[in-house]
Amino acid sequence: MRIEHKKVYAAHYTSMEQNKKKCKVLFEPSGLKIEVPIGTTLLEAAHKAGIYLSSICGGDGYCGKCKVIVDKSERLENRPTALLTPNEIRENVVLACQTKILSDMTITVPKSHTLETSQILMDSDAQRFKELAGEVQEGIFEFDPLVRKIHVEMSPPTVHNHTADHERLYLAIREQIDAPIMQTGFRILQKLSGLLQSCDYKATVTLGRRDQTTEVIEVEAGNHCKRNFAVAVDLGTTTVVAHLIDLTNATTKDTEATYNSQINFGEDYIRRIIYAEENNAFDEMQNRIVQDVNNLIVTLATRQRIDLQEISTVICAGNTAMVHFLLNLDPTRIRREPYVASAGFVPPIRAAEAGIQINKRGLLYCLPSVAAYIGSDIVAGVLTTRIFTKKGISLFADIGTNGEVVLGNRDWLVCASSSAGPAFEGSGLKHGMRAGAGAIEKLSILDDGCIEFKTIGDMPPVGLCGSGLLDTLAELFVNGIIDRTGRFTSNDQPGLTDGDEGLQFELVPASNGHHEIVITQADIDNLVRSKAGVFATIRVLMESTQTQPEDLDAVYLAGGFGNFLNVNQAVTIGMLPDVPLEKIQFVGNTSIAGAKTVLLSRKALEAAEKIATSMTYFDLMSHPTYMDEFVRASFLPHTDLSLFPSVTKSHRHHA
Amino acid sequence: MRIEHKKVYAAHYTSMEQNKKKCKVLFEPSGLKIEVPIGTTLLEAAHKAGIYLSSICGGDGYCGKCKVIVDKSERLENRPTALLTPNEIRENVVLACQTKILSDMTITVPKSHTLETSQILMDSDAQRFKELAGEVQEGIFEFDPLVRKIHVEMSPPTVHNHTADHERLYLAIREQIDAPIMQTGFRILQKLSGLLQSCDYKATVTLGRRDQTTEVIEVEAGNHCKRNFAVAVDLGTTTVVAHLIDLTNATTKDTEATYNSQINFGEDYIRRIIYAEENNAFDEMQNRIVQDVNNLIVTLATRQRIDLQEISTVICAGNTAMVHFLLNLDPTRIRREPYVASAGFVPPIRAAEAGIQINKRGLLYCLPSVAAYIGSDIVAGVLTTRIFTKKGISLFADIGTNGEVVLGNRDWLVCASSSAGPAFEGSGLKHGMRAGAGAIEKLSILDDGCIEFKTIGDMPPVGLCGSGLLDTLAELFVNGIIDRTGRFTSNDQPGLTDGDEGLQFELVPASNGHHEIVITQADIDNLVRSKAGVFATIRVLMESTQTQPEDLDAVYLAGGFGNFLNVNQAVTIGMLPDVPLEKIQFVGNTSIAGAKTVLLSRKALEAAEKIATSMTYFDLMSHPTYMDEFVRASFLPHTDLSLFPSVTKSHRHHA
Repeated sequence: MRIEHKKVYAAHYTSMEQNKKKCKVLFEPSGLKIEVPIGTTLLEAAHKAGIYLSSICGGDGYCGKCKVIVDKSERLENRPTALLTPNEIRENVVLACQTKILSDMTITVPKSHTLETSQILMDSDAQRFKELAGEVQEGIFEFDPLVRKIHVEMSPPTVHNHTADHERLYLAIREQIDAPIMQTGFRILQKLSGLLQSCDYKATVTLGRRDQTTEVIEVEAGNHCKRNFAVAVDLGTTTVVAHLIDLTNATTKDTEATYNSQINFGEDYIRRIIYAEENNAFDEMQNRIVQDVNNLIVTLATRQRIDLQEISTVICAGNTAMVHFLLNLDPTRIRREPYVASAGFVPPIRAAEAGIQINKRGLLYCLPSVAAYIGSDIVAGVLTTRIFTKKGISLFADIGTNGEVVLGNRDWLVCASSSAGPAFEGSGLKHGMRAGAGAIEKLSILDDGCIEFKTIGDMPPVGLCGSGLLDTLAELFVNGIIDRTGRFTSNDQPGLTDGDEGLQFELVPASNGHHEIVITQADIDNLVRSKAGVFATIRVLMESTQTQPEDLDAVYLAGGFGNFLNVNQAVTIGMLPDVPLEKIQFVGNTSIAGAKTVLLSRKALEAAEKIATSMTYFDLMSHPTYMDEFVRASFLPHTDLSLFPSVTKSHRHHA
Repeated sequence: MRIEHKKVYAAHYTSMEQNKKKCKVLFEPSGLKIEVPIGTTLLEAAHKAGIYLSSICGGDGYCGKCKVIVDKSERLENRPTALLTPNEIRENVVLACQTKILSDMTITVPKSHTLETSQILMDSDAQRFKELAGEVQEGIFEFDPLVRKIHVEMSPPTVHNHTADHERLYLAIREQIDAPIMQTGFRILQKLSGLLQSCDYKATVTLGRRDQTTEVIEVEAGNHCKRNFAVAVDLGTTTVVAHLIDLTNATTKDTEATYNSQINFGEDYIRRIIYAEENNAFDEMQNRIVQDVNNLIVTLATRQRIDLQEISTVICAGNTAMVHFLLNLDPTRIRREPYVASAGFVPPIRAAEAGIQINKRGLLYCLPSVAAYIGSDIVAGVLTTRIFTKKGISLFADIGTNGEVVLGNRDWLVCASSSAGPAFEGSGLKHGMRAGAGAIEKLSILDDGCIEFKTIGDMPPVGLCGSGLLDTLAELFVNGIIDRTGRFTSNDQPGLTDGDEGLQFELVPASNGHHEIVITQADIDNLVRSKAGVFATIRVLMESTQTQPEDLDAVYLAGGFGNFLNVNQAVTIGMLPDVPLEKIQFVGNTSIAGAKTVLLSRKALEAAEKIATSMTYFDLMSHPTYMDEFVRASFLPHTDLSLFPSVTKSHRHHA
């Protein structure tokens, strides 16, 4: 996968800058080497080498996230910046986006600043949330995949049975399945006769659904029914996750994830839309995400020894902007009044039309979305949690780069989206990271002040992922290290030091294996803003529908937090309403779970379409009470403590 | 149109033979000039210049039809042939296909040997048979064209009405028409938002039908509803006819016809299939017919000042082989056991996929066919004559290069096809020609032995078209000049001479304006074989269904005979059964009439599909009595005179 990436970018840049002098750059500790034209920035060179550096600002030089250390270099060009400390400057730390390569160089990339593309642990996630992804097996929806292969055996034509090949095929298909309306593409029609003759009229037909129409996607000589695969994709703003599905038995064969390589153009999609608009970079945006998806597909296929031609389907769920980027639909009014999408319901298209490399006639489906800020990932979440089938009221909150909330039951559904920011995805925090190897996903402060933690993969700690950050915030609060405003309560608190970014609390000291891990005042403010956005959104929806906390039958929390999220802590910090803990369930990545359910059952697609059509969207930007609710929620757990009786009780105990 | 042709072929040849020395060829009397590589045959050069020479054998040198006169030439290479008379050789006549160009040349093309592409008189035909093409206006089928344009005015999105553009468009469409299942192509989806914003959400939508699905073919800014055109095409083996239809009011705006330029590869489609198979020339076959259709479309559009982008639809009817050539479907088993088509029902495709130059997203429809030898032209004929709706039994015979016959009523339909040969299309006869300017379309021998005739366009006579040939055969017979076997009754009959091809009868003497026009013994034999094939087919179908001549309520004769066909003569020669004359009707080109009806009404398409599905096909090649019937019909009017009581009576009167 890495090599693939490199090739693509190398080819891209080479064609543009082939006449320039080249410099060699060696990146440590990975040992990756790259040759780039003189004048290239270190950030660009890193991406060409397949190394993703954090970069919130999209290379504008004001987020200070893409720090690297220059080990060897004869000449470089370096714009002055206030984002480096005197210590860093002494240690040859530079901002990669502000540094132009003028000679051969050796660079060290600090581990905490890279985004590993290969070690996101999704397998266990897929295991743990199997019961939610498995709607189909459980009989909620009948198994009736969007794309299927059937083997047809026809008697060859004779002078007495001279039905044309095309109609002969249709008759044979209709003997096996109910397909009143069928269509066949021109290219299939052109090759049909020769193919059927070559295999004595015993062939495998791949059939895809386009609304009420069954399309003959592919016809192959012989019986290949046992080899029919699909890839379900969650198009996240930060992380792109893919599951390889065996369509013959509805099982998940393998999973893989990568960082969304659009991340260089901004960490949230609003910034990416602005970048694309200002630089006319919509094609580039599409290329990036398509390449990410292709890399995942190639990785999964290679690992499972599957030919790409055997993958007949790709199904995507994601926020509205990501789906627009993938298909190169105009996303500009997602960020601008009147905040509308080009398309909420995207018809199935040939995957190749979007550049997705599966069977060249395979189909690409996207789940329907509700509005510019409520994407198909949320529809997938509603489908997965079955809110829309239940009599009692459920609350669903998906915490990603945005925080989307749905409230409702089988009779009504309302939804809204807060721009939570990617704090709980670990992004934008000093030692924040995604839920990858070495991420602290569980943390508690013991009564003696000692800190206990667990990392993903039991690797040496590298940083904090979502569930670890949630634990940290809650533990700092209940242990009185921060107050209700999120400020450190005392300047002489053990572990509190004055870091480059102001006050910071040391969670894990540095040791041989790893650097120290801290949480800064700025990090805490960031997390509080995120949770406040989510809770304010919940409040607006509950107020608007006159739903009381006691009316809630279930609260579902979705997102890529890490696998051991302690939902209790989400109540402690005031992100979720204070309901009995048994009502709260962490449901993991419901975007991909919903995509899989739809892939495996046409009835589930119809349900998703009904969900998308029937959900009522609340625009928070124009909502009269949202800002008040946000301000009120910017305390731990909340300004109004009566909303969190259990927390108040527990807090008192610790304080 | 001519220039278009030249360019295409020139480009084609140039790429293949660009390194060869070039020779200039001037063709008189047209004055067309062409430069070709040394070694090119005169036949090829003529086609490059856009001049179609008769060529039955496809350039193999054994039909002797492509005679031209070499006026000037320094060097040429000429294969010896027995097909030229000593006189012709003295006058520098050569076979164009057997003559290689080795220097600059000047060539005269005898007028009777060229196929005029511009003067086929179809307008009057369209007028005369208007009542048959006009099913839709008459209320048999409701006006509901396959492709329509509607103007939609949407309110632009606001923060309170944030429906996505794609769904907004669907809502607006569904306010005007019933379209439960809709689809939109990817490219339309990608441009949709920008386009709708550019026109303040007032747009014209072109909607096409694909089975039960309504497809958004095109979206344009503003109101263009008044400009929606289609072209209906009859794909004949010999002649390709196109009608330009205004879809807004169901009127035929203009008509045009051209010779099928595949004609160089053989005059019947079986020969063309063989040629294509032996030379792997399927692409070339497709290019030829597609180019013919494009030339017709460009001619019609230019004449009517219509932009090609305003033509949203092409609908074709034709024999099964021609439809296969057009779409480059495998036609090889049409000529070989088990005699099956690749597809009888062809789904609508994007016209551009087949190379047809209309709106780049416009649709190409083909009417459904029944079998390898019963094409969609015959389905169109059944639709047009309404046989399938009538209680009484009707007989339908379409005389083209083949002679297809349908018998039946609203309860049952049987059909069969005889390889009649193109004699009644004027092809393969010494002075035969298509129903173009100067063709004798009406001829009678007066009591004093004088011959009276009428030519198409009242031009000097050039040859005999179908209706003229029918008249000639009947008149020779009823006047006792030929006997029941088709032989000249007496060697000293006035007008009878010994020509290059044996005995011939002079119908029109040579004069300043024109050469003499004769009919040879070989011509007569040819015509008798054709009519015998048609009548034997009729007999087989009638015998098989135990239909007596008196059971026939109506007999329909279709084909490109010329406009003044005397149906009486078709009985006289024994081509049609001897029923009261008022029951027989000449219905002209029902292929294009049916195509137009389907174009204008979706219900008519459904009717055509039902016709194609329900018709029972009789394979004459394996039929036990067909050959006997053929032999019995090879007399004038028939071996069994009791089958033609009215003819026997009338003949006696003349004899």
